[in-house]
Amino acid sequence: MSLTPLPTILYADTVRLALAEDLGRVGDLTTSAIIGSGVQADFKVVARQAGTIAGQEVAREAFRLVGADVTYTSAVSDGSRVIAGQEVANISGPAASILTAERVALNFLGHLSGVATETTKLVDAVVGTGTAITCTRKTTPGLRALEKFAVRCGGGKNHRFGLDDAVLIKDNHIAVAGGITAAVRSVRAAVGHLVAIEVEVDTMDQLRELLTSPVDVVMLDNMAPAMLREAVAVVDGRMTIEASGNVTLSTVRDIAKTGVDTISAGWITHSAPTLDLGLDAVSD
Amino acid sequence: MSLTPLPTILYADTVRLALAEDLGRVGDLTTSAIIGSGVQADFKVVARQAGTIAGQEVAREAFRLVGADVTYTSAVSDGSRVIAGQEVANISGPAASILTAERVALNFLGHLSGVATETTKLVDAVVGTGTAITCTRKTTPGLRALEKFAVRCGGGKNHRFGLDDAVLIKDNHIAVAGGITAAVRSVRAAVGHLVAIEVEVDTMDQLRELLTSPVDVVMLDNMAPAMLREAVAVVDGRMTIEASGNVTLSTVRDIAKTGVDTISAGWITHSAPTLDLGLDAVSD
Amino acid sequence: MSLTPLPTILYADTVRLALAEDLGRVGDLTTSAIIGSGVQADFKVVARQAGTIAGQEVAREAFRLVGADVTYTSAVSDGSRVIAGQEVANISGPAASILTAERVALNFLGHLSGVATETTKLVDAVVGTGTAITCTRKTTPGLRALEKFAVRCGGGKNHRFGLDDAVLIKDNHIAVAGGITAAVRSVRAAVGHLVAIEVEVDTMDQLRELLTSPVDVVMLDNMAPAMLREAVAVVDGRMTIEASGNVTLSTVRDIAKTGVDTISAGWITHSAPTLDLGLDAVSD
Amino acid sequence: MSLTPLPTILYADTVRLALAEDLGRVGDLTTSAIIGSGVQADFKVVARQAGTIAGQEVAREAFRLVGADVTYTSAVSDGSRVIAGQEVANISGPAASILTAERVALNFLGHLSGVATETTKLVDAVVGTGTAITCTRKTTPGLRALEKFAVRCGGGKNHRFGLDDAVLIKDNHIAVAGGITAAVRSVRAAVGHLVAIEVEVDTMDQLRELLTSPVDVVMLDNMAPAMLREAVAVVDGRMTIEASGNVTLSTVRDIAKTGVDTISAGWITHSAPTLDLGLDAVSD
Amino acid sequence: MSLTPLPTILYADTVRLALAEDLGRVGDLTTSAIIGSGVQADFKVVARQAGTIAGQEVAREAFRLVGADVTYTSAVSDGSRVIAGQEVANISGPAASILTAERVALNFLGHLSGVATETTKLVDAVVGTGTAITCTRKTTPGLRALEKFAVRCGGGKNHRFGLDDAVLIKDNHIAVAGGITAAVRSVRAAVGHLVAIEVEVDTMDQLRELLTSPVDVVMLDNMAPAMLREAVAVVDGRMTIEASGNVTLSTVRDIAKTGVDTISAGWITHSAPTLDLGLDAVSD
Amino acid sequence: MSLTPLPTILYADTVRLALAEDLGRVGDLTTSAIIGSGVQADFKVVARQAGTIAGQEVAREAFRLVGADVTYTSAVSDGSRVIAGQEVANISGPAASILTAERVALNFLGHLSGVATETTKLVDAVVGTGTAITCTRKTTPGLRALEKFAVRCGGGKNHRFGLDDAVLIKDNHIAVAGGITAAVRSVRAAVGHLVAIEVEVDTMDQLRELLTSPVDVVMLDNMAPAMLREAVAVVDGRMTIEASGNVTLSTVRDIAKTGVDTISAGWITHSAPTLDLGLDAVSD
Repeated sequence: MSLTPLPTILYADTVRLALAEDLGRVGDLTTSAIIGSGVQADFKVVARQAGTIAGQEVAREAFRLVGADVTYTSAVSDGSRVIAGQEVANISGPAASILTAERVALNFLGHLSGVATETTKLVDAVVGTGTAITCTRKTTPGLRALEKFAVRCGGGKNHRFGLDDAVLIKDNHIAVAGGITAAVRSVRAAVGHLVAIEVEVDTMDQLRELLTSPVDVVMLDNMAPAMLREAVAVVDGRMTIEASGNVTLSTVRDIAKTGVDTISAGWITHSAPTLDLGLDAVSD
Repeated sequence: MSLTPLPTILYADTVRLALAEDLGRVGDLTTSAIIGSGVQADFKVVARQAGTIAGQEVAREAFRLVGADVTYTSAVSDGSRVIAGQEVANISGPAASILTAERVALNFLGHLSGVATETTKLVDAVVGTGTAITCTRKTTPGLRALEKFAVRCGGGKNHRFGLDDAVLIKDNHIAVAGGITAAVRSVRAAVGHLVAIEVEVDTMDQLRELLTSPVDVVMLDNMAPAMLREAVAVVDGRMTIEASGNVTLSTVRDIAKTGVDTISAGWITHSAPTLDLGLDAVSD
Repeated sequence: MSLTPLPTILYADTVRLALAEDLGRVGDLTTSAIIGSGVQADFKVVARQAGTIAGQEVAREAFRLVGADVTYTSAVSDGSRVIAGQEVANISGPAASILTAERVALNFLGHLSGVATETTKLVDAVVGTGTAITCTRKTTPGLRALEKFAVRCGGGKNHRFGLDDAVLIKDNHIAVAGGITAAVRSVRAAVGHLVAIEVEVDTMDQLRELLTSPVDVVMLDNMAPAMLREAVAVVDGRMTIEASGNVTLSTVRDIAKTGVDTISAGWITHSAPTLDLGLDAVSD
Repeated sequence: MSLTPLPTILYADTVRLALAEDLGRVGDLTTSAIIGSGVQADFKVVARQAGTIAGQEVAREAFRLVGADVTYTSAVSDGSRVIAGQEVANISGPAASILTAERVALNFLGHLSGVATETTKLVDAVVGTGTAITCTRKTTPGLRALEKFAVRCGGGKNHRFGLDDAVLIKDNHIAVAGGITAAVRSVRAAVGHLVAIEVEVDTMDQLRELLTSPVDVVMLDNMAPAMLREAVAVVDGRMTIEASGNVTLSTVRDIAKTGVDTISAGWITHSAPTLDLGLDAVSD
Repeated sequence: MSLTPLPTILYADTVRLALAEDLGRVGDLTTSAIIGSGVQADFKVVARQAGTIAGQEVAREAFRLVGADVTYTSAVSDGSRVIAGQEVANISGPAASILTAERVALNFLGHLSGVATETTKLVDAVVGTGTAITCTRKTTPGLRALEKFAVRCGGGKNHRFGLDDAVLIKDNHIAVAGGITAAVRSVRAAVGHLVAIEVEVDTMDQLRELLTSPVDVVMLDNMAPAMLREAVAVVDGRMTIEASGNVTLSTVRDIAKTGVDTISAGWITHSAPTLDLGLDAVSD
Repeated sequence: MSLTPLPTILYADTVRLALAEDLGRVGDLTTSAIIGSGVQADFKVVARQAGTIAGQEVAREAFRLVGADVTYTSAVSDGSRVIAGQEVANISGPAASILTAERVALNFLGHLSGVATETTKLVDAVVGTGTAITCTRKTTPGLRALEKFAVRCGGGKNHRFGLDDAVLIKDNHIAVAGGITAAVRSVRAAVGHLVAIEVEVDTMDQLRELLTSPVDVVMLDNMAPAMLREAVAVVDGRMTIEASGNVTLSTVRDIAKTGVDTISAGWITHSAPTLDLGLDAVSD
């Protein structure tokens, strides 16, 4: 199954806001003073470094909102890996419109490709282990749907999208509830039959308590590989296992080899550097 | 002059959108099932690494929007430097409200403090040179006003905020206009007397052409320190000089020492890793 | 665990839109012409028929948006059952503000209490069977979060909230995929570990195919009680079972007694008549 | 005069909000995982019960917002009566887009057709009497313009649209003003020459007081047919007469035969059950 | 009956938009750099010319949105006449907040008072004639509700608020319908019993045709006083009469003395010069 | 360089809001009752008085939002001068759509052309002096971007667009700062290198103090021509000079002849009467 694009309706307002931020109250003072509306041009978006592309449709929307007669032709699809120097897209039409939307389009494309690229690095590191790579809710404010999409472009899976689409019981909840069992019972009484339940445990004792009333997913937080391996054995397929904490490019493969089902990492969304992309004029 | 907070009206909608992203269509399934509205708690935001704080009022707004009776007390003001383990804020009130807003508040505070922290590193690196550190328009879509504020918190200055509040003539504009002189002339005819004009030049020849009709600011793009020094001499105070390109923690001081007025770097906004912050329960 | 209120942020805009609909471009022509701002009054909301109340905080918000000095005191909490003639809330403050917001507040309270009341009827009908009552996505456009909340007030559980928080594979999906097994496989490859998967089946053959790769929930669509009983036996606890189709007050108990886990009905949201509520002046 | 469609601008945002409710933060998880963007399909909307159709353009807008290349062809126009089994519309295009928008489109079409259908029942019941059927402000929050349109589709007339487009003096206003005469005088002094004035009266005495300074419309509230007949005689054409209260399919014809000009009923908007409509795949 | 304020909900977004226009992406650069948040100040709004005040609550909202601790005390109520030099309001609180909101608040207050002032001039000119002064739909885009309110502050009455709250049949409608009688018949068949109907006529022949099926209001367009007098006699109380066209301060009294009920003028909204107001620091 | 149109994205919402104001909750009651959707018509916008046109694209957007099949053909471009009776635009398409959007389109076009026309009068009055005419922030709330555009259409230049794109130090700032020098110093420390700084001075003493640390622009407020001339001599090219205060058609040329660079006037935006435009049916 190839990657399915997000419905435009889910990000069109985000693009509009970003353009409004940049156009302000006048539009592009420089371009409008210098470049007449009749000047046509041909540009290409080029990767200045290797990475995974995400956000082609978002970039297209930015150009579309500024000038209906700009043609944006993707050279590679979302989820593709590119090398330094590779063409990512071709953009032709009125030069003024293209230059006016350039920064907003590249800000989106660079940021989302950055998230996809970091995801890809983790995915590559665990290749062959059968373990999935998953994001978290530590996303950039306002960009959750897009960053989660970028994680999918990078070959990762998505964790829950918000506080409302799955349950995640953490230490503070357990403390107030008076224990894991009580917390799980309260949650089961409250939610519907399509809400997955996950519990975060820090110790083997907590894990064993949880197994007396297993839930859909257990998150093993900050456990070393040896303990993870033991936990996998103890769970024995009765719950999906997610490992989190101290996930880096150096540690992730060892974590994966313990047999956990998925590994989650916040930094692929909250600390991904932008993928360096440039807009080059195409000379005839 | 101490740092002035942004008017709330400039970011309240941004915070509201971020909360809407996280609360979805039900709110916090986990917390609402486990923690009654009468449970009070006391938490503190703690820095897990050293850095510069930005976004205290933004975090406060997130808690305020979820629960009017949450009290958010800043332990340090925006722009302050903290060390690992230092308390950043104290939050007390209904535990359910605090846990529900936690992630959104920390996503803002961590991201903005990350931008401030990267800015501070550059500012520290050029201390004593008299050169300013400046951001660019390479910001995260939707967060420009806040990231520009974070740059100020980190001791940096702001470049233009959008396409409409200053002119920046770049290579593509010059090419269409048929030269620097023509481009500047077109812009002067179009804009008002309060719009600053900047021109990007790549060579000493371009710089010399520009000096025949100087503008407010010249951007020297990707020039090595030796050429920058020469340029500073040639300009001789007739324009403000901005250096850009290849600005890293290792190069920035050498660039500053050439005598340029300001150095701009995009990565302090587009690639700043989040500052690691945690929410800890305060035991009585 | 008592019912938790929705965060105000999830419905404040809905209330604002409803008020805007009613106030139009001038406000309340009649009241403003007749009733001075100094006239204080005391009203009560009274149930004109028996039912289950839902929407007290929504009604409060409507009065709050029109007049900050109106006091809305709930006489019963959301989820309470009332008899005809019972007081639901007391409202005191400026008469003009109260009369201006009256219709919008009652439109919300009556509609949501109507949904809760229909839910309660089904819940009562299956009492003691251990079967839950669940809503669907057949909600009134714009009111999904509130109607789902009203279902919870009525003692029901929620089905998925949208197309994005759980998977429901139906006949059209199966047809395109070329069978249940292929459809389930495609979905598993695409979604994360916290997304529950449900499949709709119409026949015992389909059910048996599904059991070769069981999912979280199976929806048995339009099956008679005898077949439902057989299906419950066949599934034997390996999936949660939802029955749907032809659910009425007369049929629901027989369906529940087959041992299915939950029964879903669209009409409790899309066809619930309003609960008749009136606003009566309180004479001193 | 045939029924005129609502300007799209009046409901486009409502449709967008309803889609946003359903698509959430990812879109249609199920469909996007199973059905590729190249799969074309042909569906028809079929009435599962008899009724009056309203909302064809609203349904079209829902499909348009999800997929520009979906073709929605109405088989009958708004205001048409259909029988069970009759085709209402044909929809062809990408299967994924059609299935994604299906629920939202049918939620609108079913709800509005439900309102039109209830209206039609009342209109049919009074046929030949010359009395009009009218809605009230007891509408579903957020849907007033659409429900009022559906009432017109059903053959009814609209009452005022909000608090600002006509005056309706009720008992609470009369009590504060100190009588009908005083209330009418205050209103006349305040409103412009294009604002119609209606007064609600409960007794013949009130009616006679009102006739000393007649207004545009008198609402006779909860009067039995005998008293209505007397009132019609007393008014003698000097005001338009609206009867309200206790309006059912069994009572409405007797009320109409008293000679009142219009009869208003809130339940045609606030308690109309949805019209049962289904989406069937068209086999080639 | 004193003038009733508009519900805040009807203009709060308008004020917010106006502030957003002025604050841009940073807020008040000048004030925030110079004036610390602790500096308190006391200002007064002073009329620099005579006029009628409208918009006190709108100005208050502007200050409130920028700084919750600003106190705005009206010295005169909306609808009051002031002389040059008279104090209109006192504003005290943080100097920075007051200076930041000053321009937006005065732009509203000056514009609305300008509309009220022009209205007052016409109202004064017809004093004693019993004729009302009315606005039109020729309002400034985005400000209709506020300008209509300002007309009321100036002693005028409001014409219809939009295309949807009353019918106004003009020449183009009559031409398409094939005559006044046909046009009126179509409209009567379409609208509800609370919608007032007005017809514009240019000649005595049209007026006589209209009287064969009179409507609520007739607009006599561009008729000289002699013809207006004749028309008043012909109508003889069977319709409300509105005169429009060529209404100036010199002509309005003669028009009023013909006995028409109301006179409408577009320029009191679309061409009213601002009332000159200033903000003066109050020295202790 | 010809005048560049505003990006549509900068005013589309403003037009939408204005249409929403006029269409209300039903649309055009009159037109929809009388004119069928099949009736085609041809209209022209005609200037009823001489002036400068601004807002053609805004008017086009109003017609586009109401009816996609309306064709709006500008007869003259924005910034053109027209004489009384001259055709401004031709509009053809469905008569109902054209009549429905007419008022909103003309309200925009008339208002913006009014601003352009007043600007042109000042520009004409100073022709040959080399002095520019500039607007202020005294704009109609909600219309700043459009009114500033209209000023450009009229041949004027724009002052700053808001509080955030340039610094303007006025008397209140100077008083709090304790003098011009201190105020300028605070501002320089706070703002970036692309923010122009202007200071308002009332006396020659203040001007001389300012010249000890000159800024980009000095505003000479309310000075008579003789003093302006002296100031021009004193400044001697070291700052751009703006004159403001008491600018009328009679005074402006004398002010310009003193040698100031630009003259600002608030009334060209806040008190410009609408340009009288009409919509005439084109007979075949």
